[in-house]
Amino acid sequence: LTRARLAESSRNGLVVPEGLIAHGRGEAFDYLLGERTTPSARRATRIAAQWLRAARHPVVSVNGNVAALAARELAGIQRALPRIGVEVNLFHRTPGRAARVARTLERAGVRHVLGVRPTAKIPGLPSDRAFVDRRGILVADVCLVPLEDGDRTEALRALGKRVISVDLNPLSRTSEQADLPIVDEVVRTLRNLAADLRVPGPDPVPGRFASFSAPAALRTARATIHRRLRKERPSRSPPASRRR
Amino acid sequence: LTRARLAESSRNGLVVPEGLIAHGRGEAFDYLLGERTTPSARRATRIAAQWLRAARHPVVSVNGNVAALAARELAGIQRALPRIGVEVNLFHRTPGRAARVARTLERAGVRHVLGVRPTAKIPGLPSDRAFVDRRGILVADVCLVPLEDGDRTEALRALGKRVISVDLNPLSRTSEQADLPIVDEVVRTLRNLAADLRVPGPDPVPGRFASFSAPAALRTARATIHRRLRKERPSRSPPASRRR
Repeated sequence: LTRARLAESSRNGLVVPEGLIAHGRGEAFDYLLGERTTPSARRATRIAAQWLRAARHPVVSVNGNVAALAARELAGIQRALPRIGVEVNLFHRTPGRAARVARTLERAGVRHVLGVRPTAKIPGLPSDRAFVDRRGILVADVCLVPLEDGDRTEALRALGKRVISVDLNPLSRTSEQADLPIVDEVVRTLRNLAADLRVPGPDPVPGRFASFSAPAALRTARATIHRRLRKERPSRSPPASRRR
Repeated sequence: LTRARLAESSRNGLVVPEGLIAHGRGEAFDYLLGERTTPSARRATRIAAQWLRAARHPVVSVNGNVAALAARELAGIQRALPRIGVEVNLFHRTPGRAARVARTLERAGVRHVLGVRPTAKIPGLPSDRAFVDRRGILVADVCLVPLEDGDRTEALRALGKRVISVDLNPLSRTSEQADLPIVDEVVRTLRNLAADLRVPGPDPVPGRFASFSAPAALRTARATIHRRLRKERPSRSPPASRRR
């Protein structure tokens, strides 16, 4: 179903060919991780909810793949944490695609989509990938970046922002650079995150963030893949007769 | 460059969106394997050359991704082993796509492309995926299937054919079902295969195939991924100052 949705979204230009290839890379890691949320990823998502609630300016960055797969989940996150900024942030940006991503989000119930007409640039990136919204990522203290590329994750960190990534590849530069890498599939993660944000409780003190060990989380993800690879594979079908 | 070529090929319909996603899955495994031909894959490719030369009716099955990436390599294989059948075999078949794949192959120098208008069906598959050429896969004793899906690999084996697969995922059903799974990237593999077929020597006895242990080859591939995952990752960049 996910593949069919992305293929369909590529036909109308919401998702670019490069986004389909990137999705395939994620699928491979999801398969190796067992196609389910690991306990470690679930814990990381809970910490991410705390960070977003403790943030002064939380922002989530949205590309074509995320809009195609998880627009409803983003609306759920915004309902649970209305002050989170939702910003369109495209690697392959055209005005038409930015508007299409925004429309997809709005149809799913997201309000005040940022970044459709970018108003600022972050330093250290090729210009077409540096555009941001000055009410959004530019002033954010905590950025949630699902399916982000390594260069931008690095640039955001260099600006002193806390970066929460969602990336199935525990070896990617994004996972390695993020302060809080969630190694899990994006729809599952954003759904869990919305649930965590809905849990009632006192608001955390702004700027007081729960501690998190990114290297330990990535080690755990790699160990999960190890275990899955070591397991005996289902046996091969019996060889067919060769006499014909 | 490979990504750009596939993205471009998807714009003109040679490659389907599902093919881009499948390519991404391969990329992830290629990364885990070190993005190079392992000694084990190289040995498997040499055995594959022996099998194709010992075959009475060797056929290579070609889909959109293979045509987009490795048409020249296929022409090289055909020059080295002129009696090999080159057959268009599409998971997502339309007459237009089949013709486009054939044209791509012919422009690269492949001759007598089979399967453009399928003339037979292999049993045990949904009808649109079962079409084959009765001068090609139907009568083949050895089938080389780069980037094939598990169902078809299984159906070919059930017909008593020897299947040589090229698939970067050592855990896929295709790799598991193949008699000779080559766990390597398709362009590298087909280039090596053409080189092996060019090595002069006496023709092998028809029907006398060198022995090969598929389970051992797959274990070796899994072990390579293990080792890569265990290696220490490059250290993270120093955290940026958070006081702003």
